[in-house]
Amino acid sequence: MALIQRGARLRRSPFFDKTLEAGCKAYTVYNHTFLPSYYSDPVTEYWHLLKHVALWDVAVERNVEIRGPDGFAFMQLLTPREMSKCRVGQGKYVLITDQDGGILNDPVLLRLEENRFWIALADSDILLWAKGVAYDSGMDVTISEPDASPLQVQGPRSKELVADLFGDKVTSLPYYYFARTDLDGVPLLVTRTGWTAEIGYELYLLDAARGPELWDAVLKAGKKYNIRPTGPSDIRRIEAGILNYGADMTIENNPYEVDLGRLVDLNKSSDFIGRAALERIHDAGPSRKLVGIEIEGWPIEFNMTKWPVRARGTTVGRVTSAIHSPRLKKNIGYAMVPSEHADPGTKLEVLHPGGARVAIVVRKPFIDPSKEIPKS
Amino acid sequence: MALIQRGARLRRSPFFDKTLEAGCKAYTVYNHTFLPSYYSDPVTEYWHLLKHVALWDVAVERNVEIRGPDGFAFMQLLTPREMSKCRVGQGKYVLITDQDGGILNDPVLLRLEENRFWIALADSDILLWAKGVAYDSGMDVTISEPDASPLQVQGPRSKELVADLFGDKVTSLPYYYFARTDLDGVPLLVTRTGWTAEIGYELYLLDAARGPELWDAVLKAGKKYNIRPTGPSDIRRIEAGILNYGADMTIENNPYEVDLGRLVDLNKSSDFIGRAALERIHDAGPSRKLVGIEIEGWPIEFNMTKWPVRARGTTVGRVTSAIHSPRLKKNIGYAMVPSEHADPGTKLEVLHPGGARVAIVVRKPFIDPSKEIPKS
Repeated sequence: MALIQRGARLRRSPFFDKTLEAGCKAYTVYNHTFLPSYYSDPVTEYWHLLKHVALWDVAVERNVEIRGPDGFAFMQLLTPREMSKCRVGQGKYVLITDQDGGILNDPVLLRLEENRFWIALADSDILLWAKGVAYDSGMDVTISEPDASPLQVQGPRSKELVADLFGDKVTSLPYYYFARTDLDGVPLLVTRTGWTAEIGYELYLLDAARGPELWDAVLKAGKKYNIRPTGPSDIRRIEAGILNYGADMTIENNPYEVDLGRLVDLNKSSDFIGRAALERIHDAGPSRKLVGIEIEGWPIEFNMTKWPVRARGTTVGRVTSAIHSPRLKKNIGYAMVPSEHADPGTKLEVLHPGGARVAIVVRKPFIDPSKEIPKS
Repeated sequence: MALIQRGARLRRSPFFDKTLEAGCKAYTVYNHTFLPSYYSDPVTEYWHLLKHVALWDVAVERNVEIRGPDGFAFMQLLTPREMSKCRVGQGKYVLITDQDGGILNDPVLLRLEENRFWIALADSDILLWAKGVAYDSGMDVTISEPDASPLQVQGPRSKELVADLFGDKVTSLPYYYFARTDLDGVPLLVTRTGWTAEIGYELYLLDAARGPELWDAVLKAGKKYNIRPTGPSDIRRIEAGILNYGADMTIENNPYEVDLGRLVDLNKSSDFIGRAALERIHDAGPSRKLVGIEIEGWPIEFNMTKWPVRARGTTVGRVTSAIHSPRLKKNIGYAMVPSEHADPGTKLEVLHPGGARVAIVVRKPFIDPSKEIPKS
């Protein structure tokens, strides 16, 4: 399916011209901005990520800044996670939930100051949500989109690369911590985060005008580690059990049914949006669950249309993501099914466009980070 | 530039399979949903729209429903237009503004009941904005996305077509009014609205499962009027002075600078979000304006990157939309410039990728609906 843009409605990342120059073959749209999908093909790029270093333009992770005297109180209101456990200089993976406990986004949050936070967004306009909640809230808070454009450097050799570029200050960062730094004067914030379960970093460019400069400097320094621009790897993120907002969870889903209950602190010291609804769902248990599935048969193409899932002849749910893992040599993915069909070992049927196939419920992640699986 | 989708993150309209079948060559993304861009080429489709009937899948205009005992009061809060002037059965073109008077969206609003409204959205998540504003507002209101998917039927012969399909009930509708009806049992709401300044209608499909049925029925009935599926026509909408949210206006713009002050009722009986800011801007006058421009020289390609605009050698603004009008045989568009450069007749310079060109500020619309201009 071909897609194209007409006019200047959609935004371009600070790295956009560089991604074109590097031969990006396909873009999608995320937060009203072009996201490079791939440069060669997703399987080649997957293997590259596993063995070397991959450079992803993820400036589409637009940030929202929460700041002001009530910045901390407002951030507490926006997310079910306990923010007093997040130090200045630390990040957290958080959910943003609505009044019904529905998931609006799953950003990486950074605490920049006591009362100043950034959240790097999945694909929904949390700028509008946060400004709406702030309206008439009586809280003294300013909400805006800062000049911050993440560039991911992911893969086993990314640590050596950031050591060369930034030294100990960055390589000593614990998981989900961050540091302010620069590269030849280009202002950056570097986080020990990513979307791969491989070792990796995100370089938040803090001056959009200097995108090409940063891109070139990272590519040049990464040459000896065999760096290359790639798109985000859906194969790797599914292997790792990572969810993709919009596909695997939407406003229709609560944290418990997508197995993200660990991001809800029901014992939190202050109120948050969705608390009452989430307490009810927690007590009753979710009526459906997003489970891992293995789909039998020949390698599948990436699930594009939420294939129906059947149990004993009746349609009970949908596949939300599914792909072939070249390393596991299996078709893996997620399906949203009623809780009574969610136990590992349950046999389901997936209505693949090429015909029905057996699918078995399995535990996530598909690849346990603690167990080494051959990367070739 | 090629674009493609991987996975099931983006939504498909109820007409999506039909648009593929009809040979849609290019899609873009709008409200997290695929929007067909064109089937042959935009110039051919423009001429078709002017002479016959065009069928557009604009289900991407996702609707937000506001209802409940405080539905009217909440809608009054959300928009600067006076809602007491909108009858049940009537629609209005409205703006949604934030606390600073920034434009968040420019939907077509329909008043379904005293306390029930639908707003058919441009490309931003007003569902989240409205839910955020409702949080802790004390208003008894329910906000949701209804099952409503608009399909536009536009062009000079569209009136005959809807007469055949629905009779007087629809052809007698004044501009911006609507009626509930059905087509062979497919439930619809038909509005006398569009994005063309040609005569036209929007059929809001009210049962997503029946999209293909509606598509086929309209194409079949329209055969004698030479109907064909096309994409929305940017040429025609620019000729008509119609703005495209995201390109010609964003959250950074207020209504006065984009010449939509008529949509702000500062004398409105009740409060609305952005009132204080808009009163200030109104009294001081906007510091910049979106003006019509004619760009000299050979026919241009559609402006994709907001070309810079210079006045006396200094960059003062940006082109937001620009295209070649085959009928006017001119390059026309809009530019955002400081108010001192906004008078008709002002000579500016546009930094077109192929070289600088002279541009003259002109009045909008480029084609006055009251004056007939040859359609061939």
